[in-house]
Amino acid sequence: MTLFDVQSSADSREVPINRVGVKGVRHPLRVRGRDGKVQATVCSANLYVALEHNVKGTHMSRFIEILHELNEPIDQASFADLVRLVADRLQAKSSYVELRFPYFVMKKAPVSQVESMLDYEVSYIGEWSEGVPQVGIWVQIPVTSLCPCSKKISDYGAHNQRSHITLHVEVNAPVHLEELIEMAEKSASMELYGILKRPDEKYVTEKAYENAKFVEDMIRDLALALASDSRVVRFSVEVENFESIHNHSAYAWIKQDKLSPSPALAQGR
Amino acid sequence: MTLFDVQSSADSREVPINRVGVKGVRHPLRVRGRDGKVQATVCSANLYVALEHNVKGTHMSRFIEILHELNEPIDQASFADLVRLVADRLQAKSSYVELRFPYFVMKKAPVSQVESMLDYEVSYIGEWSEGVPQVGIWVQIPVTSLCPCSKKISDYGAHNQRSHITLHVEVNAPVHLEELIEMAEKSASMELYGILKRPDEKYVTEKAYENAKFVEDMIRDLALALASDSRVVRFSVEVENFESIHNHSAYAWIKQDKLSPSPALAQGR
Amino acid sequence: MTLFDVQSSADSREVPINRVGVKGVRHPLRVRGRDGKVQATVCSANLYVALEHNVKGTHMSRFIEILHELNEPIDQASFADLVRLVADRLQAKSSYVELRFPYFVMKKAPVSQVESMLDYEVSYIGEWSEGVPQVGIWVQIPVTSLCPCSKKISDYGAHNQRSHITLHVEVNAPVHLEELIEMAEKSASMELYGILKRPDEKYVTEKAYENAKFVEDMIRDLALALASDSRVVRFSVEVENFESIHNHSAYAWIKQDKLSPSPALAQGR
Amino acid sequence: MTLFDVQSSADSREVPINRVGVKGVRHPLRVRGRDGKVQATVCSANLYVALEHNVKGTHMSRFIEILHELNEPIDQASFADLVRLVADRLQAKSSYVELRFPYFVMKKAPVSQVESMLDYEVSYIGEWSEGVPQVGIWVQIPVTSLCPCSKKISDYGAHNQRSHITLHVEVNAPVHLEELIEMAEKSASMELYGILKRPDEKYVTEKAYENAKFVEDMIRDLALALASDSRVVRFSVEVENFESIHNHSAYAWIKQDKLSPSPALAQGR
Repeated sequence: MTLFDVQSSADSREVPINRVGVKGVRHPLRVRGRDGKVQATVCSANLYVALEHNVKGTHMSRFIEILHELNEPIDQASFADLVRLVADRLQAKSSYVELRFPYFVMKKAPVSQVESMLDYEVSYIGEWSEGVPQVGIWVQIPVTSLCPCSKKISDYGAHNQRSHITLHVEVNAPVHLEELIEMAEKSASMELYGILKRPDEKYVTEKAYENAKFVEDMIRDLALALASDSRVVRFSVEVENFESIHNHSAYAWIKQDKLSPSPALAQGR
Repeated sequence: MTLFDVQSSADSREVPINRVGVKGVRHPLRVRGRDGKVQATVCSANLYVALEHNVKGTHMSRFIEILHELNEPIDQASFADLVRLVADRLQAKSSYVELRFPYFVMKKAPVSQVESMLDYEVSYIGEWSEGVPQVGIWVQIPVTSLCPCSKKISDYGAHNQRSHITLHVEVNAPVHLEELIEMAEKSASMELYGILKRPDEKYVTEKAYENAKFVEDMIRDLALALASDSRVVRFSVEVENFESIHNHSAYAWIKQDKLSPSPALAQGR
Repeated sequence: MTLFDVQSSADSREVPINRVGVKGVRHPLRVRGRDGKVQATVCSANLYVALEHNVKGTHMSRFIEILHELNEPIDQASFADLVRLVADRLQAKSSYVELRFPYFVMKKAPVSQVESMLDYEVSYIGEWSEGVPQVGIWVQIPVTSLCPCSKKISDYGAHNQRSHITLHVEVNAPVHLEELIEMAEKSASMELYGILKRPDEKYVTEKAYENAKFVEDMIRDLALALASDSRVVRFSVEVENFESIHNHSAYAWIKQDKLSPSPALAQGR
Repeated sequence: MTLFDVQSSADSREVPINRVGVKGVRHPLRVRGRDGKVQATVCSANLYVALEHNVKGTHMSRFIEILHELNEPIDQASFADLVRLVADRLQAKSSYVELRFPYFVMKKAPVSQVESMLDYEVSYIGEWSEGVPQVGIWVQIPVTSLCPCSKKISDYGAHNQRSHITLHVEVNAPVHLEELIEMAEKSASMELYGILKRPDEKYVTEKAYENAKFVEDMIRDLALALASDSRVVRFSVEVENFESIHNHSAYAWIKQDKLSPSPALAQGR
C-alpha cells in the first residue's frame, strides 16, 4: 500500500518559512572537551530547516534519524558538520541546530586541592545558510557575586549570592568551552566548586569579600575580555544576580557585533 | 438531539479512584488578608473528587463552573466552604482542592521605613471527606541565610544567599498567612524587602552577619515555633539554601503530626 | 550619617552597558482590555536602562519605586508612558521594560453559548531610545492542531494536540490584545475553551477534524494575516505542536521586518 | 592551622531533623537496563540523612564525595547499597536518596520496525532506616490518550493528546524500569515513538481511535495491573491529560498500600 505524501504536495500561499522542524528532542550526547576526552551527557535538541514557499511541509522524522546516526563526539568542528548535514538531508537552503546539555568540568578546590565536578549549561547553536556556516556557543556559568555597596557601607559583612553569567559568542576559530567558562569565572567575585573543605571555604569567603563586584562590574570585565579575543566575532553577555536581600534579580546585558559598521562596544541592541 | 453521556455509564472494574478532576486551571482570585482588605491575584487551581468504583467518569466541566461562580474572597473559612461545595456539586464522598497563587505583603524597610511589597507563593489545600473538613496552608517564604561556619573560620565576610522556607500546616483554628510568614522570617538570618535604601542595606547586611544560621538552625527554630502553636495540628517544613559558593542547595526537612501516637518532634517521615 | 554612594562613583573601563536594572519582580497589575474594562492580574517585570561608560552603577531601588507608583491600568498608551518614565527617572538615554502577565478573555462556547474564561500569556515589551518609543506585544495563544497527514492516511481518526502560537509584533498604531488572539485562533485547527458542554465538544471535535493543519499551515496563515495588517511594522511568529504521537514538538518560526530593505516575507533572521 | 568545626558543636534545642543534606546536585550517572547494558545519563541528586537532636549540623561535603566515588552502574541493588552507604558515611540512623534522570529505551515502530529511542523521566528513591532499606521507583511515561466521549458523540474524529502517566512504586523484589514502562504504555490509548514512518502513523492513529480511554480508564487499568503484581508493596499512580480542547489538564490519582490494615484499592490517602 502506498500512502499519500501530504507534506510533499504543493503550497500556493507563497509564504516561505524561516525555520521548521523538531523541538525539545531529548537524546544522549557525547561531547569532546579541551583535554580531548569525551564525556557522556544528555541534550535537548532543536533541528530546523528553511522551507520554500511552494512546498507544503517538511519531513519531521528525518531530523530524528539524523540524531540517531550521530556517531562523532560533538566539538566545534563536528557540530558544524552536523548543521550542514541537516540542510543537506532535508534538501534545504538553510538549517538551524541547537543542542543544549549539561557539561561537567573537574575542578580543584583552591586550598585542599580536592577534586570535584561543576556543571554548566551549554548550547551549541549553528546556522548553515547558502553555503556559509555560523557556529555559536552559549554557556551559562554559575558564580558568586558580592556587593561593593553593601561592603562599603556596612561595619561588617556584605551581601553576596549565586549569579548566572550567560555568554553567547559567535566565533571564527576554535574556542574551547573551558576557555569561555574561565573567562566568565575570572570576571566574578568568586567561582563555585562542588566540594569545599573548611580551608577552602575560608579562602572563597575571604576572596569574594576582597573582590566585591556589582553586576555592572562583572559584565564590563567580561565584555572587555571578549572584545579583546580576536576569535570572537559577535557576543552578548548577561549577568543575573539572585539578590540575597531581595526577591528579584539584578541584571545586566551587553551586546557587541565586531563586524557591524560601528564596532564600538554596546551600540544598542 | 440528545448526546450520549459516556461518563455516567457503569464501570465493572471495581476500582474506586482517590482523586479525579481538573489540574492547572488558571483563574483570577481575590484573597482576604489579615487586615481584612482584599487583594486581587491569579491562581492555578486543582479540583478533584473521589469517584466510586461503579461510575465510569466524572463531569469535568462542573469543576470549572464552580471556579466561575466563586464570588467570595478566599480566606480560611470561605476556602473550606469551597472544598465542601466541590464534593456536593459532584455528588462525591470526598473532595480535594488546591489554589496556588502569589500573595503580596506591604512591608516597611527597617531604617528608612520606605514601604514596598514582597511576594510569597501560597497554596490553600483542602480536603473534605465524609463530612470532615481539613484545611492546609502551604507558604513559601524567601529569606536570607548566612553561614555560621563561613563566618567563624574567615577573617572577614561570610557567604550568604537567598533561601526558601516552605511551610505546610494543617490547622484547627484560623491562622493568618501573615502570621506564618512572620514566623518563618523570624527564623531566618534576615528577611527580604522589595526596596532598601542605603541605610536599610547597611542594616540588613549587618543584621544577617550578626545572625548567622545553618539550614539546620533555621528549620529547628521554625519547628519549635510551630510545635508551640496550639492551632497547628500537623506541619512539615522545608528550608532550601541556594548556596552562593556551590551550584547546589543545602536542604532540611522536618515533619510532625501532633495527633499521632508518638508526638515527639520528627519521628521519621 | 551619610553613607557613601558607590554606584555614583566614576568608572574608567570605558564600557557602556546596553541594559541594566531589575529582573523578575512580581507585582500586581491592572490591564485595560478591548471593552475598556480593567482586569486585575499579576506580572513579572523587567526594567532596564542603558548605563553610560563613565558611571559605575545604576540605582536599582528606583525601578521598584516606579512599579509601586503605577496607578494607571496598562494599555498600549500607558505602557509607552511607563517606558519613557523609566528612562527619565534613571536619567538614561534609553530604557527597556517588559511586563509579563496572564490575561483572561471571556469566551462563549460555540453551541451552548456557556461563558468561561481562557488564559493567555502576554508581555508588553517596550524600548525608549533617544526620544523614539517602540512598543512590542508578545502573546502566547494555546490552540488545537490536527494533523492533515494522519487524517489523510488513516481510515478513521487523526492525531491532534494542544499547540502554542507565540506572536511578537511591533506596531505603529493601537492593536488590542483580543485582536491578536483572534488572528491566532483563526489560523489554528480549532480554538480552546474553559468550559465545553457535550454539544460543544461534538462541535470542536468535528470542526478540528474538518480543519486539519500542519504546523506549517498554521504559521503561514497567521503570517499572511499579520503581513496584511498595516499597523504591524515587524513581527515574528512561532508555532509549537506538543505532538500527541511523539515526546517532542513540531515547530515553525517566521520573522518579517516590513521596514527592512527586502520586505519579502521570511528573508531569514 | 586548625579551623573550628562549627557543625560538630552541640545543639541544645532538642529538635532532631528528619532529613538534611544536599539538593539538586547534577552529576553524570550510569544506569543498567533490563538487557544488562549500561547507559550514560545525567542525574539531579538529593542526598539526606537524619540528624540527631544534639548535633548542630551535618557535613555537606561528604554527600558530594559519595557521588564522586560512585563506580557501579545504578540498578535496584546497587542503589540500595548507595542509600545505606550515605547513612554509614554520615553516621546517621537513617538516610534518604533520590536520583532523577532521563532514561532512554530503544523501541521499534509498530509497522516499519524502524528503531528509535524514547526518553522517560525516572527517579530511584530510597530510604534506609534503622537497618531496614526501602527502595522506590518513580517513572513518568508520556503516552497518547483519546477521549471516549468525544469519539462517541462526534460524527468523525475524536480529541486526543499527550498524557503523562506517573508511577511511584515500592517493591520487595527486582522490577525493571522497562516493565513499569510497558505496564503504563499498555494502559494508554497508544504509546509514543521517536520516529514514525507513514505506515506507522496510520497504525498509531487508528489504534488510538479504536482504544479510546478516559483519564479514569487509564488509571484504573494500570492500578489493576499494579495491584496484581506481587512484587509491588505500595504504589501511587497519577495520570494527567494535557487536553487538546482546553488549556488545563484532566487528572486522576490512585494510591494503594497493600500492607495497610484495609488493603482494598484506593481507600483514600
